Amino acid sequence: MTGIGILGSQGRMGLAIAEVLSELGARDAGGVDLGGDVEALAQASDVLVDFSAPAALEGHLNAAIAAGTPIVIGTTGLSGQHHAAIDKAAERIAVLQTGNTSLGIAMLSALVRQAASRLGEEWDIEIVETHHRRKVDAPSGTALMLGEAAAEGRGTTLPETSVIGRAGLTGDRVAGTIGFASLRGGTVAGDHSVLFAGDGERIELSHHAEDRAIFARGAVKAALWLAGRDPGRYTMDQVLGL
Amino acid sequence: MTGIGILGSQGRMGLAIAEVLSELGARDAGGVDLGGDVEALAQASDVLVDFSAPAALEGHLNAAIAAGTPIVIGTTGLSGQHHAAIDKAAERIAVLQTGNTSLGIAMLSALVRQAASRLGEEWDIEIVETHHRRKVDAPSGTALMLGEAAAEGRGTTLPETSVIGRAGLTGDRVAGTIGFASLRGGTVAGDHSVLFAGDGERIELSHHAEDRAIFARGAVKAALWLAGRDPGRYTMDQVLGL
Amino acid sequence: MTGIGILGSQGRMGLAIAEVLSELGARDAGGVDLGGDVEALAQASDVLVDFSAPAALEGHLNAAIAAGTPIVIGTTGLSGQHHAAIDKAAERIAVLQTGNTSLGIAMLSALVRQAASRLGEEWDIEIVETHHRRKVDAPSGTALMLGEAAAEGRGTTLPETSVIGRAGLTGDRVAGTIGFASLRGGTVAGDHSVLFAGDGERIELSHHAEDRAIFARGAVKAALWLAGRDPGRYTMDQVLGL
Amino acid sequence: MTGIGILGSQGRMGLAIAEVLSELGARDAGGVDLGGDVEALAQASDVLVDFSAPAALEGHLNAAIAAGTPIVIGTTGLSGQHHAAIDKAAERIAVLQTGNTSLGIAMLSALVRQAASRLGEEWDIEIVETHHRRKVDAPSGTALMLGEAAAEGRGTTLPETSVIGRAGLTGDRVAGTIGFASLRGGTVAGDHSVLFAGDGERIELSHHAEDRAIFARGAVKAALWLAGRDPGRYTMDQVLGL
Repeated sequence: MTGIGILGSQGRMGLAIAEVLSELGARDAGGVDLGGDVEALAQASDVLVDFSAPAALEGHLNAAIAAGTPIVIGTTGLSGQHHAAIDKAAERIAVLQTGNTSLGIAMLSALVRQAASRLGEEWDIEIVETHHRRKVDAPSGTALMLGEAAAEGRGTTLPETSVIGRAGLTGDRVAGTIGFASLRGGTVAGDHSVLFAGDGERIELSHHAEDRAIFARGAVKAALWLAGRDPGRYTMDQVLGL
Repeated sequence: MTGIGILGSQGRMGLAIAEVLSELGARDAGGVDLGGDVEALAQASDVLVDFSAPAALEGHLNAAIAAGTPIVIGTTGLSGQHHAAIDKAAERIAVLQTGNTSLGIAMLSALVRQAASRLGEEWDIEIVETHHRRKVDAPSGTALMLGEAAAEGRGTTLPETSVIGRAGLTGDRVAGTIGFASLRGGTVAGDHSVLFAGDGERIELSHHAEDRAIFARGAVKAALWLAGRDPGRYTMDQVLGL
Repeated sequence: MTGIGILGSQGRMGLAIAEVLSELGARDAGGVDLGGDVEALAQASDVLVDFSAPAALEGHLNAAIAAGTPIVIGTTGLSGQHHAAIDKAAERIAVLQTGNTSLGIAMLSALVRQAASRLGEEWDIEIVETHHRRKVDAPSGTALMLGEAAAEGRGTTLPETSVIGRAGLTGDRVAGTIGFASLRGGTVAGDHSVLFAGDGERIELSHHAEDRAIFARGAVKAALWLAGRDPGRYTMDQVLGL
Repeated sequence: MTGIGILGSQGRMGLAIAEVLSELGARDAGGVDLGGDVEALAQASDVLVDFSAPAALEGHLNAAIAAGTPIVIGTTGLSGQHHAAIDKAAERIAVLQTGNTSLGIAMLSALVRQAASRLGEEWDIEIVETHHRRKVDAPSGTALMLGEAAAEGRGTTLPETSVIGRAGLTGDRVAGTIGFASLRGGTVAGDHSVLFAGDGERIELSHHAEDRAIFARGAVKAALWLAGRDPGRYTMDQVLGL
């Protein structure tokens, strides 16, 4: 049974991960909070899961390398320097970094990329997301991630194509753009929908999160998949076999 | 059989109305385009339908008054002066003026008003609409009309509460606001959805237009209902018996 | 501060109610499980909430009458005999019985009834619901409740009009019928949608439950509203001021 | 400019195809109705489109073979014998046969197949479709086609897994089944939605047809793609480059 060590074990995600470990058939190898004995945990674990803080990332990577233990990184707010450190670590151990550990969102991203690559530019792409009333930014990071998947499928980039929060006299829609709209209200855990609107028909690809436990569940699945892998940098797509 | 006279008979809506007249059991009393013999048409009709232009409105009202013929006004872009002229005409003939002649939208507005008046402010209200790629403004006039119904239900006004096109660091949602989001793409005739997002539950009240013939159909229904009525200013709500 | 006594305090709903009491500004007057001292609880409470079992109902009503304490009844599976006992109790105390304590569902029912009463029979009514994979019956009780609201709005009854689970060569849709469709899967707490499909347009009125805590929340709101009321039989509609 | 010949030119689809030919940059090579001079049309065309009747298929294939002209077959109600004739023709000319010529539905099928192959059986699959009140069978042929794509993705078949029109005491959902639900009402051209319901999250992949012109448009796109191809039997997937 795979032993999973949790970095940032007292954070919201760390606690949620501890809860889902048994549900998905993994062994809880223990956890440490910021400042704990990371080296010992890395030695005792088959794979590490890190949802702590960007500042702690480099120490965690070093401990993982020293122990030869693969690591899943779900920490958000990483800089280019963090990504460089991850790339370097990936030469010696297996590393999977992702901004969203939900398997459903990983699946949806792949479907959006494929649809965007096959449907021509006469299919307009619009992304709408709904989150709870306490979310302070718009659009959501996940909506932007889906937009990037769409842009990639079309052979373009998001900065060149995104239109965020239409209001007023917008004029005709510009072909090739990707529109974003955000709704806020209640306690919505997170809904995302990508619309491809063609002539006389529409395709809509949507994800609905019932609660935030799905992120913990996906992180544990990713960890079970990553344990025992060769060095390299992996993605959620690969966990799904895409 | 009620005879309906069409003012602006060569416009897009005028032509559509001519098409639906037989479908809904009314007699086509004929039509005139801008500059035609409005007086004769008013005399020959049991009720008039006007989808022409704001500039023609006063002449049309005068002809209707002279003939004692009720009139449905679906012309958009009316000013305060036009509304004053309508109010004055309504002292002598039956007049129904509306910015949207779809029966479904009239029904939806009434439901939105009622829901907003019953559900407390802890139910956040958000309105999202989707239209074809050639629509040049956002949000749609109908979305704003639904927002007004919601604001009215809550005893407030739209200017005090509307938030249009969220983008960037918005901060927490402000209680009591009504958010608007607009999607544009393809050939979508018009979708509107009003979301009430509470704690742990959501109500969504939506309208989907398959094509623009519904506006002609609603106008004819309104005309059939208006024919023979006493002087006064009427609304689509009354056509639905609300 | 209103004191709420919970009958069936160790059941799933009883526990959930205890959790939401503070959230909604009520005092937990305590609770009893089956066989506990109901009389003492009734005396100590301003209002009782019963989510126990049909067999316990009569004892609970008697204790409530003896103490002169209003009671909310959310127990399901009640027979005609139970309803007769409730009617009799309502001559002496305030009683609110409902098959669904969610405020959102009560609101939706009222909107469905109104829409059905205003939109003619040329608007076909269809109800679709989605629940988790462990639900053993179809359609859901709430879907049937919404169907009854629609039938009532139209001046007919559900037994005369319902069509459940279309399959095979159904022939043309019969005007005036109300169709039901059920989806099952995952951990869906409960989605309900009532479609009014007319010529060229559709209205859809939907409710989405994020989790089952909404039933506890609605029960507490109903109890706060019922405390101090005159004898009589009340409904969730009245809690919403409908 | 590619010349497209229409077999069954006076049928509903034949007329619709004639309408979209110019829109998509193709030349109308003419058309024949049942009994017309098919050989001459085959000679004059770069590609044929057949939406006539199963009984006419063999004559049409023979004319296409004689002229060496590729043929798109959208005729429905084909038997095993018809498919054998198509296979034989495909040894000598390019043939594309499909039960649904909408590009959006072809895209959706491919996405459904992929999602079903990647998401494990703990994601329950349900398919819901809505059509106008005159549709006489349920589920729609397209819903079954999407179900087949899902079953294929999972390495099973539809007959082994489909559950159509749930009603009554169904018991727990059986893992691995694919459920179908059908709504009927109004003038809905055709909505299809495939739900993957997992633990705590859902993916929904949907198609919405605004009108039936999309089938003509897709048929013309398929014909433009097929013109000039080597002998063989092709699919809509290939038109999309899948």
